[in-house]
Amino acid sequence: MSQQTDPIGLFDSGVGGLTVMREIVKSLPHENLVYLGDTARLPYGDKSPSAIVQFSLENADFLMQQKIKLLIVACHTACAHAIEILQNTLPIPVLGVKSPGSQDLIAATKTGHVAVLATASTISSGAFQTYLQAQHLQVYPIACPLFAPLVEEGLQYHPATKLIAEYYLTPLKDSKVDAILLACTHYPLIAPVIQEILGPAVRLIEPARSLSLEVLELLRSQNLLNPGSSYPPEYRFFATSDPEKFCRASKIFFPLPIKKVLLA
Amino acid sequence: MSQQTDPIGLFDSGVGGLTVMREIVKSLPHENLVYLGDTARLPYGDKSPSAIVQFSLENADFLMQQKIKLLIVACHTACAHAIEILQNTLPIPVLGVKSPGSQDLIAATKTGHVAVLATASTISSGAFQTYLQAQHLQVYPIACPLFAPLVEEGLQYHPATKLIAEYYLTPLKDSKVDAILLACTHYPLIAPVIQEILGPAVRLIEPARSLSLEVLELLRSQNLLNPGSSYPPEYRFFATSDPEKFCRASKIFFPLPIKKVLLA
Repeated sequence: MSQQTDPIGLFDSGVGGLTVMREIVKSLPHENLVYLGDTARLPYGDKSPSAIVQFSLENADFLMQQKIKLLIVACHTACAHAIEILQNTLPIPVLGVKSPGSQDLIAATKTGHVAVLATASTISSGAFQTYLQAQHLQVYPIACPLFAPLVEEGLQYHPATKLIAEYYLTPLKDSKVDAILLACTHYPLIAPVIQEILGPAVRLIEPARSLSLEVLELLRSQNLLNPGSSYPPEYRFFATSDPEKFCRASKIFFPLPIKKVLLA
Repeated sequence: MSQQTDPIGLFDSGVGGLTVMREIVKSLPHENLVYLGDTARLPYGDKSPSAIVQFSLENADFLMQQKIKLLIVACHTACAHAIEILQNTLPIPVLGVKSPGSQDLIAATKTGHVAVLATASTISSGAFQTYLQAQHLQVYPIACPLFAPLVEEGLQYHPATKLIAEYYLTPLKDSKVDAILLACTHYPLIAPVIQEILGPAVRLIEPARSLSLEVLELLRSQNLLNPGSSYPPEYRFFATSDPEKFCRASKIFFPLPIKKVLLA
């Protein structure tokens, strides 16, 4: 039986999911959080679906041992391939970035023409396309495998990044697309470049914001919100490989200093 | 006991090692070859040393089951961390890209100032730096984590790649460096861009060429050269994940069509 003071668990293939965690911190400042970065096997974006399902189950298993009350799948690739399996397997609620991002996208578009930017694996899964097309939207799926490595190199403002963004966004020029889902945890950091290329009329959707409100609502409905009597909350970080590197790489993704990362 | 007709085995984290295999094919056209791409766990460039040692031992084990007479470690990151362990463990000769590349670099420089371009993990290992500094060379180690993803996107001739190459090569401007080791299997495909930036006076070293001559010499000395009576030789390809993707991605790395890739 879950307790209000039990932590929320999040996992991602690496540090990118910290952009999800930072939204959770903003919306739910009293919650204890446990984050797992599967750095031994990143990136997920170019792995096979069966491998991603297996990794996701193992990550969930590790977090369950930390007695979490709710699991957030902070990796879009893992969501695309494994969210239903996790929801059907785990005895606690499982939320991901897929559903809130899609909802926001549907709400944002006026033309009915939308784009989804994601890793190669997320795009190949067809998960977003199937869902959005069922809502009668015209969908432009675009795999952007270089965005995450560019962000991890700290080159999000480098002219090369703008050239590569222009290359990826070519299919959207002269289209009616007016809303774009940033369906990878790294992409919020590249949003200003995308906005500059496509102009201010295009809405960029970062799913983590809506997800954090969904988490708040779910915990409230199940009477599992942490009353926060032991404020400040505890944030714990685990990595499956090279915790020091996780610590260094986390800086651009998370606003608070991360001092300790343990090997999972 | 190895036979002359036994295959040579090669492994890499993915398709990049095919740039090594193509040099082996050129120098040793009668040899049967077995290639293993560890696509389930690529890239090695950002993994921990202990993980890379474990992956390397597992890859070697798989190739030993294919009854290889010689193992080539076609991945620089695996060489940097695991070549000695493999050489001390396996009952067959093990050659890697590290030693021939370094020898060529030493032979090529006149100023005694050299650079090594490689993945973050290879550079962090210090393997090349230690060896080259012991030869009284002034070494500029440069991690270039974006080069491999750019090549895999087929963007080696894109203007963004030139900008990123200029960014990485900044420390070499106004230096006395006259020879550069391309210590990653993907980098030969980016060599023209590097050459254009640094000018024709700088020698770019691709270790696979010397390695293939070293393999020829070693097999000849042990009377293990394939006499080639069953020409053409057999080339077999294995991938630890998504063989179809390996097949598609192989095109820019290998001059012959690869029709069949098996799951390892």
